[in-house]
Amino acid sequence: MNIHQVNGNERLRRLINDCLLVRKQTTDICARISLEDHVVQPIADVSPPKWHLAHTTWFFEELILLRFASSYERLNQQYQLLFNSYYKSAGQHWLQAHRGNLSRPTVAEILHYRTYVDSALVDLSANVSANAELLSLLQIGLHHEQQHQELLLMDIKYILASNPHCPSYSDTQLVKAQPADDKWRNFNEGVYQLGSDGKHFAYDNEKPRHRSYIHPFSICEKTVTNGDFLEFIIDKGYSAPRFWLSIGWDWLSINNIQQPLYWRQEGSVWYEYTLHGLQTLDLNAPVTHISYFEADAYANWRGMRLPTEQELEIYLSSAVKAGVNTAGIAEHTSMALTDVLQPYASDASTGQVWCWSKSHYSSYPGYQPYQGVLTEYNGKFMCNQFVLKGGCIATPKGHYRHSYRNFYAPQQRWMFSGIRLTKDI
Amino acid sequence: MNIHQVNGNERLRRLINDCLLVRKQTTDICARISLEDHVVQPIADVSPPKWHLAHTTWFFEELILLRFASSYERLNQQYQLLFNSYYKSAGQHWLQAHRGNLSRPTVAEILHYRTYVDSALVDLSANVSANAELLSLLQIGLHHEQQHQELLLMDIKYILASNPHCPSYSDTQLVKAQPADDKWRNFNEGVYQLGSDGKHFAYDNEKPRHRSYIHPFSICEKTVTNGDFLEFIIDKGYSAPRFWLSIGWDWLSINNIQQPLYWRQEGSVWYEYTLHGLQTLDLNAPVTHISYFEADAYANWRGMRLPTEQELEIYLSSAVKAGVNTAGIAEHTSMALTDVLQPYASDASTGQVWCWSKSHYSSYPGYQPYQGVLTEYNGKFMCNQFVLKGGCIATPKGHYRHSYRNFYAPQQRWMFSGIRLTKDI
Amino acid sequence: MNIHQVNGNERLRRLINDCLLVRKQTTDICARISLEDHVVQPIADVSPPKWHLAHTTWFFEELILLRFASSYERLNQQYQLLFNSYYKSAGQHWLQAHRGNLSRPTVAEILHYRTYVDSALVDLSANVSANAELLSLLQIGLHHEQQHQELLLMDIKYILASNPHCPSYSDTQLVKAQPADDKWRNFNEGVYQLGSDGKHFAYDNEKPRHRSYIHPFSICEKTVTNGDFLEFIIDKGYSAPRFWLSIGWDWLSINNIQQPLYWRQEGSVWYEYTLHGLQTLDLNAPVTHISYFEADAYANWRGMRLPTEQELEIYLSSAVKAGVNTAGIAEHTSMALTDVLQPYASDASTGQVWCWSKSHYSSYPGYQPYQGVLTEYNGKFMCNQFVLKGGCIATPKGHYRHSYRNFYAPQQRWMFSGIRLTKDI
Amino acid sequence: MNIHQVNGNERLRRLINDCLLVRKQTTDICARISLEDHVVQPIADVSPPKWHLAHTTWFFEELILLRFASSYERLNQQYQLLFNSYYKSAGQHWLQAHRGNLSRPTVAEILHYRTYVDSALVDLSANVSANAELLSLLQIGLHHEQQHQELLLMDIKYILASNPHCPSYSDTQLVKAQPADDKWRNFNEGVYQLGSDGKHFAYDNEKPRHRSYIHPFSICEKTVTNGDFLEFIIDKGYSAPRFWLSIGWDWLSINNIQQPLYWRQEGSVWYEYTLHGLQTLDLNAPVTHISYFEADAYANWRGMRLPTEQELEIYLSSAVKAGVNTAGIAEHTSMALTDVLQPYASDASTGQVWCWSKSHYSSYPGYQPYQGVLTEYNGKFMCNQFVLKGGCIATPKGHYRHSYRNFYAPQQRWMFSGIRLTKDI
Repeated sequence: MNIHQVNGNERLRRLINDCLLVRKQTTDICARISLEDHVVQPIADVSPPKWHLAHTTWFFEELILLRFASSYERLNQQYQLLFNSYYKSAGQHWLQAHRGNLSRPTVAEILHYRTYVDSALVDLSANVSANAELLSLLQIGLHHEQQHQELLLMDIKYILASNPHCPSYSDTQLVKAQPADDKWRNFNEGVYQLGSDGKHFAYDNEKPRHRSYIHPFSICEKTVTNGDFLEFIIDKGYSAPRFWLSIGWDWLSINNIQQPLYWRQEGSVWYEYTLHGLQTLDLNAPVTHISYFEADAYANWRGMRLPTEQELEIYLSSAVKAGVNTAGIAEHTSMALTDVLQPYASDASTGQVWCWSKSHYSSYPGYQPYQGVLTEYNGKFMCNQFVLKGGCIATPKGHYRHSYRNFYAPQQRWMFSGIRLTKDI
Repeated sequence: MNIHQVNGNERLRRLINDCLLVRKQTTDICARISLEDHVVQPIADVSPPKWHLAHTTWFFEELILLRFASSYERLNQQYQLLFNSYYKSAGQHWLQAHRGNLSRPTVAEILHYRTYVDSALVDLSANVSANAELLSLLQIGLHHEQQHQELLLMDIKYILASNPHCPSYSDTQLVKAQPADDKWRNFNEGVYQLGSDGKHFAYDNEKPRHRSYIHPFSICEKTVTNGDFLEFIIDKGYSAPRFWLSIGWDWLSINNIQQPLYWRQEGSVWYEYTLHGLQTLDLNAPVTHISYFEADAYANWRGMRLPTEQELEIYLSSAVKAGVNTAGIAEHTSMALTDVLQPYASDASTGQVWCWSKSHYSSYPGYQPYQGVLTEYNGKFMCNQFVLKGGCIATPKGHYRHSYRNFYAPQQRWMFSGIRLTKDI
Repeated sequence: MNIHQVNGNERLRRLINDCLLVRKQTTDICARISLEDHVVQPIADVSPPKWHLAHTTWFFEELILLRFASSYERLNQQYQLLFNSYYKSAGQHWLQAHRGNLSRPTVAEILHYRTYVDSALVDLSANVSANAELLSLLQIGLHHEQQHQELLLMDIKYILASNPHCPSYSDTQLVKAQPADDKWRNFNEGVYQLGSDGKHFAYDNEKPRHRSYIHPFSICEKTVTNGDFLEFIIDKGYSAPRFWLSIGWDWLSINNIQQPLYWRQEGSVWYEYTLHGLQTLDLNAPVTHISYFEADAYANWRGMRLPTEQELEIYLSSAVKAGVNTAGIAEHTSMALTDVLQPYASDASTGQVWCWSKSHYSSYPGYQPYQGVLTEYNGKFMCNQFVLKGGCIATPKGHYRHSYRNFYAPQQRWMFSGIRLTKDI
Repeated sequence: MNIHQVNGNERLRRLINDCLLVRKQTTDICARISLEDHVVQPIADVSPPKWHLAHTTWFFEELILLRFASSYERLNQQYQLLFNSYYKSAGQHWLQAHRGNLSRPTVAEILHYRTYVDSALVDLSANVSANAELLSLLQIGLHHEQQHQELLLMDIKYILASNPHCPSYSDTQLVKAQPADDKWRNFNEGVYQLGSDGKHFAYDNEKPRHRSYIHPFSICEKTVTNGDFLEFIIDKGYSAPRFWLSIGWDWLSINNIQQPLYWRQEGSVWYEYTLHGLQTLDLNAPVTHISYFEADAYANWRGMRLPTEQELEIYLSSAVKAGVNTAGIAEHTSMALTDVLQPYASDASTGQVWCWSKSHYSSYPGYQPYQGVLTEYNGKFMCNQFVLKGGCIATPKGHYRHSYRNFYAPQQRWMFSGIRLTKDI
């Protein structure tokens, strides 16, 4: 056994250990909600938390244990059907919109499944030799689990908000945001390098590093606040078709949309549902839970525009990133849930909300998707989705990076989405 | 206090006691399922069991305690919205199809609500004097609770069957049915008295007693069996439009209906999901969980027809009713869940399944609906529903009576519905 | 050739001649509209007039000529697919909702098809000997054509009203209705004979003559007027769920129904679209184009009820029928379009509108459907439809008879439907 | 009057004359179909031809005559509502999906409307002085009319194909395509200038001219043929989810898509519906009427990709454009319908079909939308649409230009869309 192998094995052990720590955080997130909260699916986009607990576990089972742990056996043959999200090359999968129809397996059975798989990962750590593919898949498994942590918090927020009395997720006191000035930063025209620089983990869709010609632009350091957005509402922005995309106006009309997802008006007072319960609207906090349609309409109303994803990446790369740890996996395990729920931190430049870009989610020049089952991880969603950049209060620390490409359909609102205004110069 | 009042108060105490015993059976029914099973709503028709637990409790609160218990206060103001099923005169109600979106209140909170209301009923028993309206409402509350016991068993069956591995509700062994002969009974033409005779409790829709002219008919003592129905399938009855109602054929085509709701075919073997789990199809047992469309098509295929509700009531009144207790409330409390789950009892004439009639659910001549909130109990559903008569294995004993009019829409199948063939003579 | 045959052949010739005269009226109805009006299908229920022209022709081709005219050949093989309405035993048929997608065959081609078939009927008259089945089918073909004449006028009205400027069908002046008193007529309890008495043509669903026990009732000679119905609107009847059937209230809410189909309010003035164009609302004329839901809600608001179909038939049989010719086919040919468009004739007792009954459309005791293809004519629609009795201004004279059973789904409104109030006595 | 004004007025006269010539071609296109073909709307995307005739006329009335012709009066006030397509700043507009519900105005009335507006344009030519805005709007009006000529041919094709016997639009003989070799052309990496160079008319969305960094690519001179595409079908490409976008697979499954829009299989023979009627499939002709989903799946199956819109524009600019006249308005009037219907011309490099790009339709850097009503012309559709480049057999000659950006939603197929394969080098 040469020195490379020793280092490889040591890296494997540390990585599996990281995975287990991250997986522990997933169950921690769910520990704060009732068992009943684990089961419901109020809209098709929002999966039952117990499904997330099981699906992230299935991911390790299907992609890693069944291939690299020689004697591993599935705990339950049906979980392959039930907890495969959408990988058609891994067999049939349960329809997403019907996840909330399943009362079984119970939460206890799913937690047992998690323990079963975690235990197999520990065994794997002891018994297998490192190789590049295994290390790569473990990294993906870890980041996949982190993605679902953010989804869990989005889904839990939606589930709790669907109950008329709007229960809180967290009992801690929500700190009000500080007012901030609109500062604008200018960027010069020219060819920029974009995409993952290869120093940290990145998904296939962030690669390859490539060139892009950028025209001069100015971008605001502060994201649009609730107070800013309220002016749009007061100015009847939701009733003026000239600000809206055509299908955005149809969406608004059919669904009778009049404000961001979690805003409530009672008499003359505005409230916002947060993970800390219903709160009076914090005018200095970033507006969030808005669709692309609303973000675009707001920018039009201001006579500006949304940035491209390239502009956002250039901005994020140049921003002073105080308080945002971008170093990747190693730091990930320092994420504490109290942090996750500290919304609206002081440095507005770091992005407390995912910022909508005007860029359609598409492949980079020279894009090479993952091989095998994971080829379905990213590429097949490159249609009718827009890129969001940055991160939000629910994003695990190890999941922040400038090259990260989040994406949602233009009508979706249950993620922590916001607006960073841009203009041509 | 005169003797009438004494008897009235004694009757009140006994009635409240009956209510409490019946309510205890409701929680007993739910004690056999997992907490997760209480929460889901796989289709709009099927309510989450925890909703039934709460709604039947709200019924006593809204209609009895708030009016007759002087110091009673609602446990929670929101329950009025959440657990009112459809009584618009009692204020706004939560949309039926969205019951499964509510993760809160939790099951524990709802069980506490039941205890709170039960306790208030005990207090009422001690503190209030009997009067006719109170006695009447308590009787309705008791029968309403029994109705929901049957609904609970229907809904639990559907919920459990929605999980791919088809868990059982009951661990007891399912007894196979005995073969029975087709015996036909003839009835003469003439004027018959129908509807409640006033000797037992009856809903408003069973009244008044009235006359109906009946043409001569012959009706089968045995309900159609799984074996009988299988012949229809083998003869490609589901592919022959000539047997089907026009909207039935559309329904079948759109939903790709090929067999009764809980039948499954694997290779050449037929199974039926039951409350005792998946079982090989019992050819001698009555076919059940079929729509009006299927019942009507089957009868057409046989060259016969479905009976009218009048014919079924005449038949039921004349049948030897061994094993069917029709004496009403007093006996109700002897119902045990083991009985509920004894399917397919030996005497086929007593109706192990609700039999579809060809009669539209409509009001009797001289019909007087309940007054007040309860005016919405029955009358407003008299459109596009068909009457079913008899009772089934999930019907509480005190809920059987010849005048009982059950009703469902022609496409519904999740109740224990079956077929009793009839012909003109 | 004996005397029976001679009479039979003479009857055959007269009947074919009647058919041709009736068929001429069909094209007369369409002669008043533009070619473009023949083509559109604004809702699924409303067929393009050119479809009616073709379908009634196909009916003679399919059921009579292909069987009895030895050398008859279809004009076009595709017409079998395109112009079969719903007879599945006659092969595949074009989807009803897609009739308006067909631009071809053109109106000219369809008129040629009519001529082709009419000519074949003339030949048949000369060449074939009468037999019972042929005579029966010709009668049905004639009445079928008349049914479609009324449908044509209903559909044309809907099509014209779908254009914002509401063009008129007829240029004649609409005569205002005369006020009439509410007179009530009482009927005794007892057994009545109902259904076709066999003296005139009747469809299978009007048979057999049978007995029915009727409870005492009182019925209004005058149908509800626009003025009466306006009071219901002013009293906010469309906003009060207590008057409405449950699914009626859902229908009203989803479709934002606030008034009868063709009423329009501009400022404080009410208008009604008629075949004579938009008119100020005639308060003395019968309210029409209302759903079963609206009819039932109105009756509830009045503290009364809708009649059963038996009650309506008894009433119609006893009414002085001045101005209503009920003698059948022979008189049919005297129908003139000017008559068809004489709405609101003086004698309100004769029924200028079809009156909704509270009776579900079902088969009579001993019902025997037509054999062969025509078995699909009536029976397969006996689900979720209600019987209407009487006739309306668009009903051909030869189509009025007391035993006639018209039927529509409870939400449909484009026929000339109205209300005749009834109460128990 | 100075020389500029003289030239301006001369230019104005010529431009109005061009408009009238182009408008004449619009009615020529419709002269070949039946009156009934003008009326129907088989799917929401496909407008009735009479609507196109009226809408293009309304465009001149609303944007030019009402502003520049001092005494112009609308022919009919309702046409503003009925023939405004989607310009909300020009008032309310009729719902697109309901255009086929309108039987009125008749085709004759609409042709009269065209004459009325054409006559007013002639008057304008005589009476008004040229100014930049008027000249610009006339140019837009002319190109708008040309856009609708192509839409008319697309819609007419769909309408005719909706009739089971598939009538032809043109009686001329369809010339079979010649086989061509796959030739690939390589392009170097670097910064390219893209967008309208300002020498010819261009819409706002083609501007401004801007730089884009392009990575090296190779593009095929031949578009994918029917024969090529048939291999994909034979290889079961429509049944293999791995080639498909996620929402593409859902679309395919729900709509049971198995081949291009107008392909029909009878036994082992493939046919394609064309404007010349149903033809056996021409294996050398370009595949057309395919969705973005199908184009993308085909490219994936080949191991290649769709080009970006930049790549297509670079390719088109460099291609030898024999037979493709790109000089703009002046030549436009030489378009003859016989040319329009010459499909599949010999030079495959010129694009007989619009080629799907993988680029989402979005605004260029520095984009300035039209002002006023026309601000809604392009910008508000920049969501969930993909750019197609090139042109097709139905594109008027004056409408071809390299900078042209056509756009459709990824599921749409009724335009003449095709595939030009590309690969990274």
